[in-house]
Amino acid sequence: MNKIQVGDHVETHIAFSQDQVEEFRQRSGDTNTIHTDPQAAERSAIGSDAVRSVHGMHAAMIFTQILGTQFPGDGTVYRSIALDFDEPVLVDTDYVAEVRVLSVDRKRHRARLLTIIREAVEPARTVVYGTCLVVHNERL
Amino acid sequence: MNKIQVGDHVETHIAFSQDQVEEFRQRSGDTNTIHTDPQAAERSAIGSDAVRSVHGMHAAMIFTQILGTQFPGDGTVYRSIALDFDEPVLVDTDYVAEVRVLSVDRKRHRARLLTIIREAVEPARTVVYGTCLVVHNERL
Repeated sequence: MNKIQVGDHVETHIAFSQDQVEEFRQRSGDTNTIHTDPQAAERSAIGSDAVRSVHGMHAAMIFTQILGTQFPGDGTVYRSIALDFDEPVLVDTDYVAEVRVLSVDRKRHRARLLTIIREAVEPARTVVYGTCLVVHNERL
Repeated sequence: MNKIQVGDHVETHIAFSQDQVEEFRQRSGDTNTIHTDPQAAERSAIGSDAVRSVHGMHAAMIFTQILGTQFPGDGTVYRSIALDFDEPVLVDTDYVAEVRVLSVDRKRHRARLLTIIREAVEPARTVVYGTCLVVHNERL
């Protein structure tokens, strides 16, 4: 099994539909009306865009998929995650999710990874910025 | 609308079934076999318990529900979240999820919250430990 090196990275194109937001709303039980009611959105810290926004935890689920299946891949254990939601993630908008190796501790089979979501087109702002600590006994 | 104060907190009893783990596996696309294959679990950093473990992001979804509906409640915007997965969250096990106000910035309507999941019975270890930053223009 190939060892993962500092600088290795993967990118995945993602987009969320309004139907997916509704499904997450029901599954998670997070019925916060900023995602559905224009007036509630307007009163929120995000403002009117909130009504077109994806739940932050919903957007963050892309990382558990990438980590658990692609990179480092099957066998990965999540030790910690930290995420800043700098801008709302909007429905029907193209984004790129990136996972990149920042540092590796071979002795403990650990890596610190960058986990970001950025707009797929210019200005390509980073909307979700984070890092996580993962353990993989064979790839790290 | 009542303002939230430092020290205010809510607790919710939670438990995850194997069916819920399977559902999250399918919905998230995180098909990491440590949750389903005893041999893969054994090789992982968690060890054999991994096969009875809940995906970390799945467990963390309790917080988006609490924040968006209960406390601070409807209208809350998540600015950041940080979580340490100190011990695996296991299926068919009773836990308590707690959200507690650590500090409030009234000027910017922000609060720093403690977000933890602990075992419901002794030794009541904290298995997920975190904090988050939220904004609520009316309650904070």
